[in-house]
Amino acid sequence: MPSRYLNFRCSVPWLILLLEILFLVHFFFCFPDVGNFYSPSDLYPEFQDVNHMVIFGFGFFLMVLRRYGFSSTGLNFLLIVLGVQCTVLVEDLLIFLRVQQNESGMRSLAKAVVSMTAVAISTGAVLGKANPVQLIVMSLVELVIFYVSRCINRTFLQVPDNLTLMHVHLFGAYFGVAVTSRFPEPPPGLDKNRSTPKSDLFSMLGTVFVWVFWPSFNSILADSKKEAVLNTYFALAVSAVAAFMLSALTSKDGKFRMTHIHSAVLAGGVTVSYTAHSIQHPWIAMILGLLGSVITILGSHCLQRCFNPAFKLQDTSGVHFTFGLPAVLGAVAAIVLCVVEKGISTQWNNLSSLGYLVFVDLGAFCQTISTALITGLITGLILNIKLLKAVHVSKYFDDQFYWEFPHLSVGF
Amino acid sequence: MPSRYLNFRCSVPWLILLLEILFLVHFFFCFPDVGNFYSPSDLYPEFQDVNHMVIFGFGFFLMVLRRYGFSSTGLNFLLIVLGVQCTVLVEDLLIFLRVQQNESGMRSLAKAVVSMTAVAISTGAVLGKANPVQLIVMSLVELVIFYVSRCINRTFLQVPDNLTLMHVHLFGAYFGVAVTSRFPEPPPGLDKNRSTPKSDLFSMLGTVFVWVFWPSFNSILADSKKEAVLNTYFALAVSAVAAFMLSALTSKDGKFRMTHIHSAVLAGGVTVSYTAHSIQHPWIAMILGLLGSVITILGSHCLQRCFNPAFKLQDTSGVHFTFGLPAVLGAVAAIVLCVVEKGISTQWNNLSSLGYLVFVDLGAFCQTISTALITGLITGLILNIKLLKAVHVSKYFDDQFYWEFPHLSVGF
Amino acid sequence: MPSRYLNFRCSVPWLILLLEILFLVHFFFCFPDVGNFYSPSDLYPEFQDVNHMVIFGFGFFLMVLRRYGFSSTGLNFLLIVLGVQCTVLVEDLLIFLRVQQNESGMRSLAKAVVSMTAVAISTGAVLGKANPVQLIVMSLVELVIFYVSRCINRTFLQVPDNLTLMHVHLFGAYFGVAVTSRFPEPPPGLDKNRSTPKSDLFSMLGTVFVWVFWPSFNSILADSKKEAVLNTYFALAVSAVAAFMLSALTSKDGKFRMTHIHSAVLAGGVTVSYTAHSIQHPWIAMILGLLGSVITILGSHCLQRCFNPAFKLQDTSGVHFTFGLPAVLGAVAAIVLCVVEKGISTQWNNLSSLGYLVFVDLGAFCQTISTALITGLITGLILNIKLLKAVHVSKYFDDQFYWEFPHLSVGF
Repeated sequence: MPSRYLNFRCSVPWLILLLEILFLVHFFFCFPDVGNFYSPSDLYPEFQDVNHMVIFGFGFFLMVLRRYGFSSTGLNFLLIVLGVQCTVLVEDLLIFLRVQQNESGMRSLAKAVVSMTAVAISTGAVLGKANPVQLIVMSLVELVIFYVSRCINRTFLQVPDNLTLMHVHLFGAYFGVAVTSRFPEPPPGLDKNRSTPKSDLFSMLGTVFVWVFWPSFNSILADSKKEAVLNTYFALAVSAVAAFMLSALTSKDGKFRMTHIHSAVLAGGVTVSYTAHSIQHPWIAMILGLLGSVITILGSHCLQRCFNPAFKLQDTSGVHFTFGLPAVLGAVAAIVLCVVEKGISTQWNNLSSLGYLVFVDLGAFCQTISTALITGLITGLILNIKLLKAVHVSKYFDDQFYWEFPHLSVGF
Repeated sequence: MPSRYLNFRCSVPWLILLLEILFLVHFFFCFPDVGNFYSPSDLYPEFQDVNHMVIFGFGFFLMVLRRYGFSSTGLNFLLIVLGVQCTVLVEDLLIFLRVQQNESGMRSLAKAVVSMTAVAISTGAVLGKANPVQLIVMSLVELVIFYVSRCINRTFLQVPDNLTLMHVHLFGAYFGVAVTSRFPEPPPGLDKNRSTPKSDLFSMLGTVFVWVFWPSFNSILADSKKEAVLNTYFALAVSAVAAFMLSALTSKDGKFRMTHIHSAVLAGGVTVSYTAHSIQHPWIAMILGLLGSVITILGSHCLQRCFNPAFKLQDTSGVHFTFGLPAVLGAVAAIVLCVVEKGISTQWNNLSSLGYLVFVDLGAFCQTISTALITGLITGLILNIKLLKAVHVSKYFDDQFYWEFPHLSVGF
Repeated sequence: MPSRYLNFRCSVPWLILLLEILFLVHFFFCFPDVGNFYSPSDLYPEFQDVNHMVIFGFGFFLMVLRRYGFSSTGLNFLLIVLGVQCTVLVEDLLIFLRVQQNESGMRSLAKAVVSMTAVAISTGAVLGKANPVQLIVMSLVELVIFYVSRCINRTFLQVPDNLTLMHVHLFGAYFGVAVTSRFPEPPPGLDKNRSTPKSDLFSMLGTVFVWVFWPSFNSILADSKKEAVLNTYFALAVSAVAAFMLSALTSKDGKFRMTHIHSAVLAGGVTVSYTAHSIQHPWIAMILGLLGSVITILGSHCLQRCFNPAFKLQDTSGVHFTFGLPAVLGAVAAIVLCVVEKGISTQWNNLSSLGYLVFVDLGAFCQTISTALITGLITGLILNIKLLKAVHVSKYFDDQFYWEFPHLSVGF
C-alpha cells in the first residue's frame, strides 16, 4: 500500500508539470504563426455560460456519492482546465501541419470547452474508481481520439464542423462506458457508492445549472442561434416535466426518485443537441424531449437490471442512460428528420440522394459510436496496467484516498 | 392511508401526461398560424438571467424547511416548466381567438417566465401543505386567472402590457395567502416547519441569486432598460442594508435573524418593480427600497403576532410580508409618484385629468388584489375537496411523503 | 458581557441608519448637478458578472470556518452593498469638489463594485475576529483610503484610471493583513477556526464562481476587452492546473489539500489583473499564472511557518498568500514587461525614458502597498479602542454571537 501512495505522489504532479511545459512551449512557438488570436469575436456571453455550465454545473452534477464530493468537483475542474489547454494545442498543431483555416482565440476556446464535455461525461462513468493519473491519461487520450473522430466526420463525410462537435455526448458516454467495463467491480457490500440527501441536494444544484445553461451550449457554435435556443428550451422543458411524470409512474408508491430527476431533466437537451438549429417547429423539439426523457428512465430501469449485470458494467453516475441513450435517439431522429424534410421538399422523387444523405448521417453516427467503444475498451485496458497503479476496490469512492482531511476528528 | 398513496400515484403522472399532450397538440396545430416564432430578438441574455433566477433562485430560496429540501427545489422546478408551457398555450389561444398582435418566441417565453413568478410565490405560501396534484392544479388556475386579470387591466384600464406583468408579486402573494387560509392548520407541536442552519444556508444561496438577477427581472420587458436596471439596483442595495439594520433593531440582543435577511433584502426589488422604468432620480428608488424593507420587517412582526392567528393563517415561507406588503407599497408609490409628476408638470391646474390617472392606477391595483384574494379563496376551497386527496396534517412538511429515500439508513 | 451585547445592539443599526441617511441626502442633493446618470452604457452583462462574483462568489469563498457560515456570507453581503453606495458618494463628492469628468451611472457603479473587492479581501483577513461595527468602520475607512491612493496614482504618477483600480487586490490584502495584526490572537486550543468538509464544499462552490467570472472582472473597465478576457482565462487555467500539481507535491502522501486549491486556482487571475489588457502573447499570461500559483502555495507554507508566528499574525482565510503575494508578483511583472516591451521597441537606446517608466510604475506600486500597510495598522489600532467593543477572543469565529439560532435544539 505505501508504495502505491508513493508512486501516486510521484506521478500526478510530474505528469501535470510535463503537460503544462508542453502547453507553454507550444504557445511560445506556435502562436506567432497563428496570427489573429486576439481578433474580436462576440461569443463572450455564451462562452461564459458554457464555461460556467461545464466547470460548475458538471462538477456539482457529479457530486452524487456520499464520500466523494471533493473529488467530484475538484478533479472535474482539473480535467476541464487541463483538457481545454490540450485541445487548443491539438487544434493548433493540426492547423500548423495541414492547411486549415485558423480561428479567433475565443471561438477556438469555445470549441475546446464544448469538446471537454465528453471528458466530463466519461469521468462520470468511472467516478470513484479511477485515480487522478488514470483520469488525466484518459482525458488526454479521449480528447485526441474525439478530435480524430471529428476530423474523419468532417473530411470524409462532409459533416459541418460545428455539427461534429454535437456528437460530444454520444462519444463521451460510450467511451466512458467502455472504459469503466475494464475496471474491477466494487465488492457488493460496499455502501460508499450510494448517495445521501445532502449529496443529492448538491447534485440537484449542479443539475439545475446545467439545465439552465444548456440552450447556450447548443447554440454557441450554431449558425441559426435563435432556433437552437428556442428548440433546446422547449425540449428541455418537456423532458423536465416528463422526468417527474415517469419517475412517479415507475417507482414504488408513486413517489419521485431524485436520481431519475437528475438524469431525465437533461435528456431533452442531449436529444436535440444535434438537430436544435435545424428543427422548424417547436413541437418536433418537444416530442424529441419527451422521447429522450422516456428512453432515459426506461433505460435506467432496464440497463440496471439486465444489461449492466450481463456485461459486468458498473457505470457510477449512470452516464449511459443519462447521456448515451438520448444521444443515440438524437442521432436517429436527426436522420429521420433530414430524410422526411428532404423527401417532402423533393416529393420523394430523388431517392438516391436521400439514400446518400442517410448513408452519410448513419456513417457519421456509426463511426463515432464504434470509435468511442473500441478506443474506450483499449483505453480501459491501458489504464489498468500496473504502471498506473489502479486503486484497490476497497478504496473506491473515497475522498480520503486523494485529499487531506485536517478536520477528520470533527466529522462530516 | 394506502388508498391515498395509490390515488396520489394514479393522478400525478396522468395529470402531467394529459397536460403535455395538450401542449403538444397545441404546438402542432397552432403554430403554423402564428408565424414569426423564430424571429430574431436580442432578449437572450436577460432571459437567461430571469430563467436562472426563477428556476434556481426561487427553488433554493424556498428551501427553508428542515425536511422539505427536495420538494422545495424539485416541485418548484416542475411547476415552472409546466407553467411556462401552459402560459405560452394560453397566450397563443388568445392570439388565435381575438385579434392580438403575435410576438417573437423569445419575448413570449420571457413573459411566460416572468408571470411564473406568481406561481413560485404562491407555492411559497402553501409550501409543505399541498401535494403535487394540488400544486399543479393551483398553478394552472392561477396562471389563467392572472392572464385574465392582466387582460382586464390592459383592455379596460389601458395599462401598458409590460406593466401589467409587474403586478406579478402582488397577485402571487395574495393568491397564495388566500389559498393557504383554506388549508387545515398544522398541529402546534410540529417541529418540521422550522429551519436548520443548513437549510438557512441553502436558502441564503437562493436569495443571493434572486437578489443579483433582480435588475434583469425588472428591466427585461421595460422600454427604458437603463433606468430600470439602475433604479432596481439602488433600491435593492438600500433594502439589503436596511434589512440588516432592522433585523438587529427588532430581535433580542441585537442579533441578526436569518429569516429577516431572507425576506427583507428582496423587498426593494418588489417595491420598485412597478415604477423602476419611470423613476427619474435614484434617491426616489432608494427611499422606496428603504420603505419596502421597513414594511417587510414590521409586517413580519405584526402579522405573525396579530393577523395570522386572527385569520388562522399559516403562510409557510412568509410570502405575505416578503412579497405582498412591498408590492402594495409599490403600487401606492406608483400612484403617488405619477400624480406628483403630472401635477408638477401641469402646475396642478388640470385636476380632473389627475383624478382620472389616480382612478385608473387605483382601479388596476384594486382589481388585481381583489381578483387574487377572491379567486385564491375559491381555489383553496377547490383544492381541499376529497377528489384531490389533501395531505393529512401529520404528513405536512415532509419530503418522505413525496420522494423515495434509498439512503434512509444513512441519515441526513 | 451583557453591556457589550447591549452596546453592540445600540451601535450597529444606528451606524447603518446614519450611513443610509447620508447616502440618501447625497443622492437627493448631489445628482441634479451630476447630470447624465442614466446615460446609456453597454456594460450591463459584465457588470452582472462582476456583481455576482463579488456578492455571491466572495461570500461563499469566505465560508471556510466551521461555525461562521452565516456571518461569512451575510456580513460580506452587507459590507458590499453598503460600500458600493459609499463609493458612489465619495466619487460624486470629489466630482462636485474638483473638476473631474462625471460618468454614466452604470460605469460608476461598476467601478464601485470592483473597488469593493478590496473590502471583501480585507474582510477575509479579519474573518471571525471583528464584530459588525468594526467591519463597517473598517470598510468605510478602507474605501476612502483606497480612493485617495488611486487619486495619488492617477494625478501624480499619470496611471490611467482603470489601471489604478487593478491595484485592488494588492491594497485589500495588505490592508487586511495590517489590520488583523492589531487584533489579539485566538487561544491556541480553539478549534472553531478550522473548516469542515461541508464548509470546504461551500467554499469550493464560491471559489468556482469567482474563477468563472474573473475574466469579466479583469475586462470590465479595460480598453481592449478581448485581450483581457483571453489572457485572464489562460492565466487562470494554468494556475488551476498548477494548484493541483503543487498541492500534491507539497502535502504529505501526495494528497491534494482543499485550502491549497481554494487559494491557488485564483492566483492566476490576481497576477495578470494589472497586465491582462496589454499582454501580447498568451504564453506570457500562462507563465504569470504558473508563477502566481507557485508563489501562493510556497507562500502559504513559508508564511504560516515563519512569517506569521514572527509577526504574531493570524490571517484567517489566508488572504496574504491568496491575493497579496500574487498581486506583488503581478505588479513586478507589469514593470518588467513594460520595460522589455519599450526596450525592444526603442532598441534599448532611450534608457532615461525607460528609467522614468520604471520609476512611475514602481512608485505607484510602493505608494499603494505602503499606504495599505500604514493605514491598515492605524485602522487596526482604531478598531481595537474600547468604544467599538472588540469581541473577546473566546467568542471568535462564532455565528451564535451575531445571529439568532431559533433552531439550536435541532443541531447543525
